[in-house]
Amino acid sequence: MQIAHSALTQKLSAFVVLSDTDLDTLARFHRRRRSFAAGHSLIHEGQNHKSAFILAEGWACSYKMLPDGERQIVGIQIAGDFLGLRSILFRTSDHSLEAVTRIEASEVLASDILDSFAQAPRLATAVLWAASRDEAMVVEHLVNLGRRSAEMRMAHFLLELRARLKLVGIGDASGFDCPLTQYHLADILGLSAVHVNRVLRHLREDGLVTFQKGRVMFHDIAALGTLAGFDPDYLDQDGPLLR
Amino acid sequence: MQIAHSALTQKLSAFVVLSDTDLDTLARFHRRRRSFAAGHSLIHEGQNHKSAFILAEGWACSYKMLPDGERQIVGIQIAGDFLGLRSILFRTSDHSLEAVTRIEASEVLASDILDSFAQAPRLATAVLWAASRDEAMVVEHLVNLGRRSAEMRMAHFLLELRARLKLVGIGDASGFDCPLTQYHLADILGLSAVHVNRVLRHLREDGLVTFQKGRVMFHDIAALGTLAGFDPDYLDQDGPLLR
Repeated sequence: MQIAHSALTQKLSAFVVLSDTDLDTLARFHRRRRSFAAGHSLIHEGQNHKSAFILAEGWACSYKMLPDGERQIVGIQIAGDFLGLRSILFRTSDHSLEAVTRIEASEVLASDILDSFAQAPRLATAVLWAASRDEAMVVEHLVNLGRRSAEMRMAHFLLELRARLKLVGIGDASGFDCPLTQYHLADILGLSAVHVNRVLRHLREDGLVTFQKGRVMFHDIAALGTLAGFDPDYLDQDGPLLR
Repeated sequence: MQIAHSALTQKLSAFVVLSDTDLDTLARFHRRRRSFAAGHSLIHEGQNHKSAFILAEGWACSYKMLPDGERQIVGIQIAGDFLGLRSILFRTSDHSLEAVTRIEASEVLASDILDSFAQAPRLATAVLWAASRDEAMVVEHLVNLGRRSAEMRMAHFLLELRARLKLVGIGDASGFDCPLTQYHLADILGLSAVHVNRVLRHLREDGLVTFQKGRVMFHDIAALGTLAGFDPDYLDQDGPLLR
């Protein structure tokens, strides 16, 4: 069954052992597969959305625009992530979301997700876990912006991405391909693009990590982790907790 | 039925019309009522917790400590909020939580919450909504730290608190009692205590808001909202969406 190998299934399996009922319900989430070009806007702040998406391939980013035209990227979404789960529960979406690369995603109706809670309560728990994990990442991002230096922010962000990609089978020990530009990094980390370049140069010169030509290459994971104060526990992805 | 008047019921009713089954299930969440002194630590980062709490009275704060001893407050919890919902889903808690004032809270076992999803799927949806709303607040907090000036951050934070307190029947049009110190505000907004005092003086001198002697008094909500770029839509609390 192909769905058993989807990135979402891989991710949720880090939390629960999924039963056949759970897998059948998840399969229904994947009926409406769609493709979107890089730059396509899937969710608009202030609009009402009746469906969310499950990202199967490619990268997306969620963000908020400020009245002065500045943008704060809230999070980066990769394969296996929900896009706009909050948008279907709320009257209007509190953020916007666009494709960073060409993406493949399954459209899920709000009613499909909510009905599934009655049919497959374990899956409801797994979805709540995934939403909680997303929140934990926003919390780490908040701590990054509030209390960490520019170098620590960048190191933390790259290590988090590495761990998230690994969970869904992307990248390897040495690094991963990364389509984000210096402008994305600036809007994620609350820095200017010039500052981003300086930070990446420092990390490279210190022999920790190189981000060049669309690839992140790690040279010293341990030292980078110490610099960032990175503790992957908040990602909670060390194999099923609910059996 | 007293539970019908609990702060959590009031809050969830902003999202769903609760059935008798939902109210019965919620009532079971409130069997273990406990009191904690101001400063008591309820949740410890890195520990495993089998129960969460529903705050009935008083104020709490969730935070993360950094290796250098700095603290970032992630959020403030008021009546009707879950304390440590993420802690019971995760292997280890990703944050700590302490009582700001003396608090009254109901202890809820993880199993109570998860079992309720099978018995009362609408309630599961309401709990997912509440968790999503908490995430939306962390997102706004993140935007505050990443892209807003110190004055905008403070204005946004005080207006958000006003709206949240109003939903559970605390405070009035003129303002609310607030037990937070300048040190809390500094750790919430990523500022120094000296900076917090300067920001509060500016807002007072501009005739927008006064925070003195444990009370926040609003003088010009509209102007404060414009300054903050505050749009309460992300709190999504304008009456039931699911009927």
